[in-house]
Amino acid sequence: MSDTREQILEQIKEQGELVRQLKASKESKEKIDEEVSRLLALKAKLGGDAAPANQKFTLKTPKGTRDYAPQQMTLRQGVLDKIVQVFKRHGGEAIDTPVFELKEVLTGKYGEDSKLIYDLKDQGGEILSMRYDLTVPLARYLAMNKISSIKRYHIAKVYRRDNPAMTRGRYREFYQCDFDIAGTYDPMLADAECVKIVAEVLDTLDIGDYVIKLNHRQLLDGMFEACGVPPNNFRAICSAVDKLDKSPWAEVRKEMVEEKGLDGATADRIGEYVRLSGGAELVEQLLADPKLKAVPNAVKGLEGMQLLLKYCSLFGLEQRVSFDLSLARGLDYYTGVIYEGVLKAEPGSTGSPVKTLQNGDQAPEQGGTVGSVAGGGRYDNLVGMFDPRGKAVPCVGVSIGVERIFSVLEAKFAASKVKLRTNDVEVYVASAHKGLHEQRLRVLNQLWDAGIKAEHSYKVNPKLLVQLQHCEEHQIPLAIVLGDAELAQGIVKLREVRTRQESNVTLAELPAEIRRRLQE
Amino acid sequence: MSDTREQILEQIKEQGELVRQLKASKESKEKIDEEVSRLLALKAKLGGDAAPANQKFTLKTPKGTRDYAPQQMTLRQGVLDKIVQVFKRHGGEAIDTPVFELKEVLTGKYGEDSKLIYDLKDQGGEILSMRYDLTVPLARYLAMNKISSIKRYHIAKVYRRDNPAMTRGRYREFYQCDFDIAGTYDPMLADAECVKIVAEVLDTLDIGDYVIKLNHRQLLDGMFEACGVPPNNFRAICSAVDKLDKSPWAEVRKEMVEEKGLDGATADRIGEYVRLSGGAELVEQLLADPKLKAVPNAVKGLEGMQLLLKYCSLFGLEQRVSFDLSLARGLDYYTGVIYEGVLKAEPGSTGSPVKTLQNGDQAPEQGGTVGSVAGGGRYDNLVGMFDPRGKAVPCVGVSIGVERIFSVLEAKFAASKVKLRTNDVEVYVASAHKGLHEQRLRVLNQLWDAGIKAEHSYKVNPKLLVQLQHCEEHQIPLAIVLGDAELAQGIVKLREVRTRQESNVTLAELPAEIRRRLQE
Repeated sequence: MSDTREQILEQIKEQGELVRQLKASKESKEKIDEEVSRLLALKAKLGGDAAPANQKFTLKTPKGTRDYAPQQMTLRQGVLDKIVQVFKRHGGEAIDTPVFELKEVLTGKYGEDSKLIYDLKDQGGEILSMRYDLTVPLARYLAMNKISSIKRYHIAKVYRRDNPAMTRGRYREFYQCDFDIAGTYDPMLADAECVKIVAEVLDTLDIGDYVIKLNHRQLLDGMFEACGVPPNNFRAICSAVDKLDKSPWAEVRKEMVEEKGLDGATADRIGEYVRLSGGAELVEQLLADPKLKAVPNAVKGLEGMQLLLKYCSLFGLEQRVSFDLSLARGLDYYTGVIYEGVLKAEPGSTGSPVKTLQNGDQAPEQGGTVGSVAGGGRYDNLVGMFDPRGKAVPCVGVSIGVERIFSVLEAKFAASKVKLRTNDVEVYVASAHKGLHEQRLRVLNQLWDAGIKAEHSYKVNPKLLVQLQHCEEHQIPLAIVLGDAELAQGIVKLREVRTRQESNVTLAELPAEIRRRLQE
Repeated sequence: MSDTREQILEQIKEQGELVRQLKASKESKEKIDEEVSRLLALKAKLGGDAAPANQKFTLKTPKGTRDYAPQQMTLRQGVLDKIVQVFKRHGGEAIDTPVFELKEVLTGKYGEDSKLIYDLKDQGGEILSMRYDLTVPLARYLAMNKISSIKRYHIAKVYRRDNPAMTRGRYREFYQCDFDIAGTYDPMLADAECVKIVAEVLDTLDIGDYVIKLNHRQLLDGMFEACGVPPNNFRAICSAVDKLDKSPWAEVRKEMVEEKGLDGATADRIGEYVRLSGGAELVEQLLADPKLKAVPNAVKGLEGMQLLLKYCSLFGLEQRVSFDLSLARGLDYYTGVIYEGVLKAEPGSTGSPVKTLQNGDQAPEQGGTVGSVAGGGRYDNLVGMFDPRGKAVPCVGVSIGVERIFSVLEAKFAASKVKLRTNDVEVYVASAHKGLHEQRLRVLNQLWDAGIKAEHSYKVNPKLLVQLQHCEEHQIPLAIVLGDAELAQGIVKLREVRTRQESNVTLAELPAEIRRRLQE
C-alpha cells in the first residue's frame, strides 16, 4: 500500500497476466472476478488518471436495506432506550440468538410467508436461513435449553424478502423489539400485562393517539364453526379475515368464496360478525348469541375476552382497548388472545403515507387509523414443536414495530427542523495561534482521564475561526482556547460557545470547573 | 391451533395425503420437506403420545454460533456500555449498516481470507454476502455518501466461516466494536488518539495488564526492500511475518523460503529485524541502520513511528506502548501505522487457554502475553477503491475484540461465584392469602405508572412462601405483601427482602416510600 508507483505498475502487469491466464484456462467466474477485483484495486491505487473504471457495480446497499446515519442512530437509540425501560419495568431479561438458524428450525412455521425467508448459500456444511422473526428463535431457545419459564426481551434485526416500500418504513432488514412471557400460568394475567406494555410503550414514545385492538383465536375458530366453515378451512379463512384492515369486506368475501371455496351464505354470516367491535358489553351480547352459544370454542374464547377486558380495566386501559372481531393476525402460530396497537389518524389529517407495517401487518389506506405499531398474542404450541417429546411451554408476547415508529419520528423531526446532536462532546480544545498542538494533546489527555468528553482539530495549526465555527455547528457547549501568554501563567480561556463569554481558568482547576459549568 | 383433537386428526390425514402425492409426483426435496414439516407440526399438536418423532433434526444453533442467555447479556451489555462511553468521550458518532452487502463490495478486500465469507443463496435478485468486518462497510458508506470526514463507532456482529474454537472465544458470528477517524489530517494526530482509545478501553474494563504493540506498514515494506525481498512478494512475506505471534521464527522462515520462494539469506536478514522491540531509542537505532537508511520507505516509516511515540507519551502511554517489528497484522488494506492491544499473562499463570482472537488475530500459545484484545491501523486507500473516481479518504481505526474480553470476564465471574442480577426488578407484589390477585394488579398498575420496576406471580393464588423465595433468589430488594386486614385500612406491608424487616405503608405513599428505600 505504501508501494511506489513503479512497484504498483509492476504488480498491475503481473495481476493482468494472472487474469488473462485464468480466463484462458476457463477458471470459474468467481475466481476470475476475485482476481479482476484485485487488478482494479491495484489500478485504483494509482489514482483517477490511470484507473478509468475503478469499479463496475453500483455503489448501494442491498435491495430493501439501508444504512443508518448518525442522526438516525441518535433517534433510533432514543426510541430503543425508552422501549427497553418499559420492558425492564416489567422484569424483562435480555437474550440474543444468532442472526441465522438451521433452515429446518424455520420450516413450517410461517405458512404462506415462508417464501420470503432468506436462505444462505450451501457452502458445504449446514443449510442456514436468516431469522424471519424473533419468536421462532425464542421457541427454539426455550426447547433447546429446557427452559419452562422466562420473561425475556430481544431487540434485533430480522429478514424478509418482501417487496420493500422503504419510503413507507417497510424494509427487508428491520428491527423487531419483542417482549414475551413464557410459562404455565393462570389465564390472562400475563396476556393482560403484554397489553399494558403496548400501552406504556406507545405512551412513553408520545407518537399520537392510539387504540389497542383485541381478539381471540379460539373465538375466531368458534365463530367460523358457528358460521359453518369446514374445520380444515379455518386457517385459510382466518388469513382472509386478516386482510380486512387493508381491503374492504367485498374483496375479502370474494377471496373466501372464489379462492378458498367457501359457501356464499357462510361468508355472509362471517361478514356479520367481523364488523363488530366494542367492549365488555359486546362480549355479553355475543355470549347470548344463539349460534355462538352452541359452540364450546366460541364460549371459551368469549370467556377469555371477558377476563382479559376486566384485567385491562384494572390496568387503567378501559379507554385504550377495543374488542374487535375483524382482528385476525397473519401468523399461524397464535392460539389464544391476539392484539394490535394502532395509531389513530391525526385530526384533520387525510391519512398517513405510511400504511404498511414491518411485522407483516398492514394498516388501512384510509379511515380513522393510520398504522399498526405493535402486535402480538398467545402461542401455546410453538415451543412444543421443537421439543423432541412435544412438551409445550405456553407463551404470550408482543412485538413493537419500531421501524414504523422511527419513520413517524423522523418525519416529525424533519418537520420541526430541530437539529439533533449526534455526538456528546462537552469541550473542544482549540489553539489561538500556531505551535500549540502538543499543549492541546496534554490538555485533552487531562480531560479524557477525568472522564470529560473532549475533541480537537487533527490539524497541527488550525485557524481559530475554523475551530470556533466547528463548536457552533456541532452545538458543543464549551471550548478551551490555548494561547502562549495564558499558558505561561498556567491558565487557559474557557469559552461558553452559545454566549461567546470567556473567562480564565487555571489548568489545575479545569476539569472541576468544566463539570460545574456543564451542570449549570 | 385451538382445534379439537378430531379436527387435528383430520388435518393430519389430509396433510399425509398431500405429502404422498408430492413424493409420488417427484416434487422438489424442498417442497416435500416443507410439507413434511407441516405434517410433523400437526402431529406435535396432539402431544407426546401420538407424535413419536416431533422433529428429525438436532436442536442446535448453527456451527460456530451461540445464544446469549440473560446472564451473558448482562455481562456483555456492561462491557459494551463502557466501550461506548470511551468512544463518546472522543466524540464518536454511531452508524449502522446492513448485515449483508452486495458480494462485489467485499470482493478483493480480504486477500486469502475471502474464502471465509458467507454468501447468501441466489434467490433471484442481487448476489449478497454477510459482512466480514465493519471496516469495508464503512468505506462503502463513506464513498457512497461522499463523506470526507467522520469520527464514527459501529458495534455489530460480523461473520466468518472460520474453524470455530468456541471454548476459546472464537466464533463464526461475533461482535466487533470499531472506532474510526476518517479525514485528511496532519500526520499521527488521529492515529495516536486511536492508541489512546485502546488504552482507555482496556483500563476501564480492568481485565489485566496489557501492552499496545505498534508498527508501521511503510517501515515493514522498507525493511523488506532493505533485506532484498522482491516488491511483488511484500504482501505474502508480510502475511508470513503476521504469524510470528503464534509460530516460532523457524516455522515462519520455512514458510517464507519453501512456500513463498524467498532466498534463505534474505529471510535471515528479516529474522534479525523482526526480533526487535522497544521504544524511541529503537527508532533512533534503526534510523542509523545503514541498510534501512538507504530505503526511503523505511525512513518515512521510522519518522512516522517517532512522531507517534512522541504523541503517545504526551497521552501518558509511554509505559503502555512497545514498538515491535514483528507486528504485521493480517489484513491487506493497512497502509500506515498498525497496532494491537495484547493482554499480558497473569503472574504465575501458565498461559491462558484462550489463544485465538476473533478479529482474525492470533495470540501466542506460550510466553509472556496471552491474547490480542484490540487491533487496528491506518488504511488510506480503502475508501478510494469504492469511489468511481478513486477519490481517497484517509482513515485510521481500532477494533476492540470484545468476544475475547467476554470470555475473560465470563471466566472471572464463574470463578468468583458472584451471581449477576439479570433483571432490574425493584419491588415484588405478593399476596399474603387467597383472593387478592385483582388488588395486586391495582397496586402493580400504580407502581408501573410511577415508573417503578415491579412484578408479581402470574398465578391467581400463589403461596406466600413461594413468592418470598422468588424475591430472595432473584435478589429483588423490596416486596409488598398484601393482606385483607391491612388493605381495609388502606395499608400494605413493605418488606426488605435481605433483612426480612417489614413496616406498614399507606397505598398513597407507596411509590414515594419505595423510591426513598431504593435510594438508601
